Amino acid sequence: MEKKSIRIGQAVTDYYFGGGLKQLATVTDKRHTVVLTDENLYGIYEKQLKGWKTIVLPPGEAHKQQSTVDGVMNQLIGAEADRKSTLVGLGGGVITDLAGYIGATYLRGIRVGFIPGSLLAMVDASIGGKNGVDVGVYKNLVGTIRQPSFLLFDAALLQSLPENEWQNGFAEIIKHACIKDAAMFRELEATDIAGYRKNKKALAALLRRNALLKTKVVQKDETEQGDRKLLNFGHTLAHALENLFQLSHGEAVAIGMAYASEISASELGFRQAERVKRVIAQYGLPTKLSFDPDPVFDILKHDKKRERDSLHYILLERIGKGVVHTLPLTTVKKIIEQIS
Amino acid sequence: MEKKSIRIGQAVTDYYFGGGLKQLATVTDKRHTVVLTDENLYGIYEKQLKGWKTIVLPPGEAHKQQSTVDGVMNQLIGAEADRKSTLVGLGGGVITDLAGYIGATYLRGIRVGFIPGSLLAMVDASIGGKNGVDVGVYKNLVGTIRQPSFLLFDAALLQSLPENEWQNGFAEIIKHACIKDAAMFRELEATDIAGYRKNKKALAALLRRNALLKTKVVQKDETEQGDRKLLNFGHTLAHALENLFQLSHGEAVAIGMAYASEISASELGFRQAERVKRVIAQYGLPTKLSFDPDPVFDILKHDKKRERDSLHYILLERIGKGVVHTLPLTTVKKIIEQIS
Repeated sequence: MEKKSIRIGQAVTDYYFGGGLKQLATVTDKRHTVVLTDENLYGIYEKQLKGWKTIVLPPGEAHKQQSTVDGVMNQLIGAEADRKSTLVGLGGGVITDLAGYIGATYLRGIRVGFIPGSLLAMVDASIGGKNGVDVGVYKNLVGTIRQPSFLLFDAALLQSLPENEWQNGFAEIIKHACIKDAAMFRELEATDIAGYRKNKKALAALLRRNALLKTKVVQKDETEQGDRKLLNFGHTLAHALENLFQLSHGEAVAIGMAYASEISASELGFRQAERVKRVIAQYGLPTKLSFDPDPVFDILKHDKKRERDSLHYILLERIGKGVVHTLPLTTVKKIIEQIS
Repeated sequence: MEKKSIRIGQAVTDYYFGGGLKQLATVTDKRHTVVLTDENLYGIYEKQLKGWKTIVLPPGEAHKQQSTVDGVMNQLIGAEADRKSTLVGLGGGVITDLAGYIGATYLRGIRVGFIPGSLLAMVDASIGGKNGVDVGVYKNLVGTIRQPSFLLFDAALLQSLPENEWQNGFAEIIKHACIKDAAMFRELEATDIAGYRKNKKALAALLRRNALLKTKVVQKDETEQGDRKLLNFGHTLAHALENLFQLSHGEAVAIGMAYASEISASELGFRQAERVKRVIAQYGLPTKLSFDPDPVFDILKHDKKRERDSLHYILLERIGKGVVHTLPLTTVKKIIEQIS
């Protein structure tokens, strides 16, 4: 197991690569640790979790809300968790967001670690310290930014994931390649999901590369004043589409990236929109959606990244180089109308 | 109005002394500000709050809980508060604790300012960034440590306070004098509450002195690893007594300080316990309580500052010099049994 300690802001996070769930006991003291997980993961890893204090939640984004947090707080009190306790989130983005938020506020902050349980969580959601819960239709309306004390990556947890979970993860991996890493983009072009599933070594290297890529972006800009905004590539439109249509996050981001590539072509002379769309399709993700632009733009008007009548939109200058661009809402609308 | 900008950790807080509520508009943009207050203060200052967006809560510690937070979150959404908004807490410790916590988590943190509305809040509760809510019998179980962007001190807000609120505030002022400021202790010996109520200039200077004294302690030790612990002088026993008996916070702290002075005499040869008790009595506060030690020690056993069978207890070496002392619970119990 490789250990890498990385400072983000005032905090230091220990990254453990190439290890497994069974190494958790070497990273945190069993007697003073509570593991927060969901029924799905608990069902699969019950044996390995034997002897650990666990809090098991029903799975799904619907439970990412304050009432769940309140319930977990009471279970922590019941488990006599104190200032020396560690809360470990074992699961996908919902679990790591909840564990991060609960750990940031219980007793004004206890030690938190994550064992991301999905590809998306490994390469994206578990990294960067953003946590929180949804309030009604508003995603992550309440939360904090606080780095975990450790991240334990166990690639074996991916084996049980269904295909669409792999696609969700690869949407973010393609995003990372587009905004920051042309060499990784070429690697992605040369293979596909089945290829990575078969080649454990290549998969482990890909996980590590993406976790560290996102970490580096966050490290430079924890509070999203600059570079961290690039991670929103494909996401501005995706959030609106996810709100309106039955799409997975990966599908929505994929469509958002495809459209952002087209807007990059029209606004910045970006010439490789076709390559971006080809790689998106190669990982089983959509590049197009027919929709009525009006309701989508009603939502974009309320986007958190909006300033008056303009949006901070992430575009590509070239593959591997994302840029923040301020675009009038009317321009975005015109281009999207032309595409759809 | 005097402005003083003070860095604590990564944050800078602007302190405004000698101003008033009506200067709020010079400190924050009215259009992008929401004022959180309680019915008592709103009743008194309704006129001055005209034109400000306000959220008004019922008064009292009973409302310092998550369900209140949830309600305020929804009101902030309704008021279209966004990342550029400021939340101002106008009130005593309950309001500043709620406003600090809500502001730390709404949209993962918006700008927060406090206008402390009680003497206790001015010299203590509003300073240092600790915020939160109670969970059942557990005080401040959930919260964060996050510094406000500004503190606006309006001594005129004190005029409407009842006598027991003045006593609550002076308990913390006496505490500050005991642990850090022998000169202020002598000033306190030379006057009383009636004296400060009459002498506005001396009162304003006392407020400023105490706000800056606490700030300096917090500045050195935001997360309570060392010096900040001194602020618990009188508070370990006080928390237990408050739980069991109908005492105000000031009364409980006063008794706690008197007993801690006796323990200081017995453990450290502190010779001025009588002077401490005299000044406590001079400000209308009790120095003694008859109680059965057993239930009190059951609570002390669960104190957050406990480590195994010892307590971090704050004692006095001399007036103006508090020290952290590790005492076996049995020793504390024996001394308190002798006194009571």
